Amino acid sequence: MDIKDEIIDAVVKDVISRIRIKEGGRAIPVGISNRHIHLNREDMDILFGKGYELTIKNHVNQPGQFAANETVCIAGPKGCFERVRILGPVRRYSQIEISRTDAFTLGINPPVRDSNDLKGSESLCVIGPAGMKVFEEKVICAQRHIHMSPDDADRFGVINGDMVDVEALTDKGIIYRNVLIRVAENFALEFHIDTDEANAADLKNGDMVRIIGINR
Amino acid sequence: MDIKDEIIDAVVKDVISRIRIKEGGRAIPVGISNRHIHLNREDMDILFGKGYELTIKNHVNQPGQFAANETVCIAGPKGCFERVRILGPVRRYSQIEISRTDAFTLGINPPVRDSNDLKGSESLCVIGPAGMKVFEEKVICAQRHIHMSPDDADRFGVINGDMVDVEALTDKGIIYRNVLIRVAENFALEFHIDTDEANAADLKNGDMVRIIGINR
Repeated sequence: MDIKDEIIDAVVKDVISRIRIKEGGRAIPVGISNRHIHLNREDMDILFGKGYELTIKNHVNQPGQFAANETVCIAGPKGCFERVRILGPVRRYSQIEISRTDAFTLGINPPVRDSNDLKGSESLCVIGPAGMKVFEEKVICAQRHIHMSPDDADRFGVINGDMVDVEALTDKGIIYRNVLIRVAENFALEFHIDTDEANAADLKNGDMVRIIGINR
Repeated sequence: MDIKDEIIDAVVKDVISRIRIKEGGRAIPVGISNRHIHLNREDMDILFGKGYELTIKNHVNQPGQFAANETVCIAGPKGCFERVRILGPVRRYSQIEISRTDAFTLGINPPVRDSNDLKGSESLCVIGPAGMKVFEEKVICAQRHIHMSPDDADRFGVINGDMVDVEALTDKGIIYRNVLIRVAENFALEFHIDTDEANAADLKNGDMVRIIGINR
């Protein structure tokens, strides 16, 4: 393919992608995930004591979910983080989500994964007030994604599992490629990224981004 | 402007931008800057003792520059980092370059700036083996940029001061907007980003990126 073909090919792809995106309501608020942990009942019992119940610090944008007052320490071969927030409620599976920067501090190398896709992922020690445990294959860097309801998906012209390009119009503007669309009845519209991804564009919580391309 | 005009406008801009970029030799190696410090003679004397000379740990890609064996501690209102590497040789001006993630740990809010544009920037305490000093308005988040020689600039069809779009073709692919072109006789070709920006795309040192647009 020579340079002209390459240009034509890229432009055609770009036009198709732009036409696919429906007009109107394209702004999506940013939700930045700091390092956090989800716990199942069994791990709650080990770390906080049998039958312990999380208490709510504040609700987050996704319905029913909350940041708990309770925190744990997570530790790896090169370092640890104290006061890592638990995201409630108690889940079916335990999972730790960190940024790549955190991973270097801890001395581990987690894969970039969707939630609950944990096979072959990384391990860390978790220390709670009532006990400690090695979390084997429970640590990932969360794949960036957009939560939305079926109505929102219809409005944007996307379906569950689509990969889209998302543009941040900050001074440190970035286009994020390969952003996963996740559609569910109870999802609030939100572009979920980690602190590295937010900082790379100097995005803050609640800043608005938009979908500029769909790769199907 | 309705949605069709917007599409046409965007596509025309895209075509012009792609045509501007000269064919061939478009790959640029990535150089990731971890937090580091540059020191002038006066600050060297305070932190390491009168007349102290830096020793070379390893050379970096830019001609004449090196990572020194010597390190300092930098401290802010919320935290500190020990063993922050000095980048030699001694410069005309002292400057500390950190990522946004580092800035949160330290508890400061530095602006995104080009080197030596320090007016109104942030402050930190710097502690060396022979003394300590408050570095007033000496702390920035470095603006991402590409170093290149005049020959490279000619090859890429860009000039000093141009802002370009740079694409990383990783799984976590990103297009970095607003990347500054810096041309000088002794510059080695390199895309300089901080650890947040690298981690957002999972780029490693020496990975290749390419210029995909020029905004002039």
